[in-house]
Amino acid sequence: MLERFKVPIKDQVRVNHVDLRETVKQIFQKMGETTEDATIASEVLVDSDLRGVESHGVSNMLKEYISYYESQIIKPRADWKIVKESPSTATVDADTGLAVILGPKAMNIAIEKAKKVGVGIVTMRNAGHSGAIGHHALIAAKQDMLGMCMTTGGMRVVPTFSSEPLLGTNPIAVAAPTNSKPTFLFDVATCSVAGNKIRLAQRSGKKLMPGWVADQNGSPVMEESKLADHIDIPPLLPLGGTREIGSHKGYGLSLVAEIMCSLMSGGIPSMLEGHEAVSKHFFAAYDISAFTDIGEFKTNMDDMLSKLVNSKPAPGFEQVLYPGLPEFEDENDRLVNGIPLHKEVVDFINKTASSLEIDPLF
Amino acid sequence: MLERFKVPIKDQVRVNHVDLRETVKQIFQKMGETTEDATIASEVLVDSDLRGVESHGVSNMLKEYISYYESQIIKPRADWKIVKESPSTATVDADTGLAVILGPKAMNIAIEKAKKVGVGIVTMRNAGHSGAIGHHALIAAKQDMLGMCMTTGGMRVVPTFSSEPLLGTNPIAVAAPTNSKPTFLFDVATCSVAGNKIRLAQRSGKKLMPGWVADQNGSPVMEESKLADHIDIPPLLPLGGTREIGSHKGYGLSLVAEIMCSLMSGGIPSMLEGHEAVSKHFFAAYDISAFTDIGEFKTNMDDMLSKLVNSKPAPGFEQVLYPGLPEFEDENDRLVNGIPLHKEVVDFINKTASSLEIDPLF
Repeated sequence: MLERFKVPIKDQVRVNHVDLRETVKQIFQKMGETTEDATIASEVLVDSDLRGVESHGVSNMLKEYISYYESQIIKPRADWKIVKESPSTATVDADTGLAVILGPKAMNIAIEKAKKVGVGIVTMRNAGHSGAIGHHALIAAKQDMLGMCMTTGGMRVVPTFSSEPLLGTNPIAVAAPTNSKPTFLFDVATCSVAGNKIRLAQRSGKKLMPGWVADQNGSPVMEESKLADHIDIPPLLPLGGTREIGSHKGYGLSLVAEIMCSLMSGGIPSMLEGHEAVSKHFFAAYDISAFTDIGEFKTNMDDMLSKLVNSKPAPGFEQVLYPGLPEFEDENDRLVNGIPLHKEVVDFINKTASSLEIDPLF
Repeated sequence: MLERFKVPIKDQVRVNHVDLRETVKQIFQKMGETTEDATIASEVLVDSDLRGVESHGVSNMLKEYISYYESQIIKPRADWKIVKESPSTATVDADTGLAVILGPKAMNIAIEKAKKVGVGIVTMRNAGHSGAIGHHALIAAKQDMLGMCMTTGGMRVVPTFSSEPLLGTNPIAVAAPTNSKPTFLFDVATCSVAGNKIRLAQRSGKKLMPGWVADQNGSPVMEESKLADHIDIPPLLPLGGTREIGSHKGYGLSLVAEIMCSLMSGGIPSMLEGHEAVSKHFFAAYDISAFTDIGEFKTNMDDMLSKLVNSKPAPGFEQVLYPGLPEFEDENDRLVNGIPLHKEVVDFINKTASSLEIDPLF
């Protein structure tokens, strides 16, 4: 994550992940989820914070989820079910359950199918937010499969040449196992910058970069700006920023996620539904051993990632990274030293705990 | 395709696609391919030209393929075989056959598997170039499936922060069926600009845009430049251009293609092989009717694509497009008025025809 999104040191409170898990779990129980499902939800959120993915950890998401439960946009103990199935596929109607909880269950269904026939795909409609989809992709990688996950919902991104925000930030995640190197985990929004990062920038007063957002007419803003410079939260640009630098590629990828999540789950995209709270998801597990020798695969992964990390950096950079490496380093730090939450987030969690009559963080 | 890549009108020779197919087919036969396979190769190349994808049509690729046959880097009538198989997967060793020809065969295997179990995936190692992978993805869409294709080979793209070109242009294509709207077909390189476009810019003397290429040290070139300004053919930047505008996303997508094509076919990436001519490919067919009602899916596709095309354009633009729409319009024009080849390309084809003792184009 770019330095500009990190919580400034003066505002940080380091919180032990075990304490955070317990409090977050209890909050989900108070929302009406079972102990088992509340534990899953807590794990998905706190694991994101541990991996340095604050944009999808407790800081941004917990408040939103609570408001969704309270306004009954999402339902605890949802009566989700498989509505269509084949040897390698399943389509789930989530009954407005939170996909933070249903995502791991869907990925496990995909994994079981992949064990039997080589590939397993689960699509899900009528669901709540999924949390960081990389978390679900990782579940497959931990079982020596290639995991892929996509999600869609909301309307925040302007298609190339358009003035109307018609697309969600539609992220794509892929995880692949290794031997000794940190696991490969790619997890990015198909717009220039993840929507939640705008909120992090707002909280820390940082500037928005050229190519991140459009003005109210849909024209790409190609100079630095502050959120306060914009009339409202500005629409986001597809990855690439402008057509000439490739925004049609980010736009097209976003549509791919829309098709594979919304249309392939029997749902319809937000731009046609006209409301934003319902998300659609795609979970895939590819059993590597159905394609090739898993030992060779993992050795090749290690060798490739080593080659990248040991390549000569361009001037001004210390080291070449790969997706999953910085997150692994953050995790090692945070497991020992705690998760650096913004003091306002700690306040929010403690106030929420107090109002729900559970123990505060400290 | 950007206007700057089109053949200037003064250099255009309009060639009837039927004539072009016949000549190109005969050239492939002279390279040693069977009539059936030469017909496939001709179709893949000329269809790309018809759809306005000159970068992957006869202009750029035919010359290269002939040189590969002549230097025995690729083999006609290759003894390709399935080396590993499961109900939803197959892994192919291509015996250095050209994937322009083997791609449609692989996609058909994937489609047959998808008909039986819902999803079919074929990976291919030890192969030649695939031509425009969108062509292969379209084969699935024509059978009411979602088609996906990726490919990798070569080392032209610098990873984010690196000074060494270690990755291929690693494109990703996805095709999805519609009712009455032109078929959705997304087909893009995971770098800012496709490698072949640099050659088109060279031929037409056009400038390279900021964010397309790196200098010899790997630093992104963020102003316009001419190819002549660079010491050599410059390395390409991942989609996003710089880290702050998202190049780590293009870089990560490129690695995803590398993993799913190279490592999942039992091959290794070019950066470890140390030579560039061998490509690896990934072909997937997802049977939409295994997930949901195909009629509803196609209606939703039409409605979504209409919504996009009818959205209000940003200032300075006439219409919002979607992937596959401009190519459909080019195809309608070119079927009637001929394919606008550069006069140098026509000369090359006629000289090649003459040296192989077949009839020239005209």
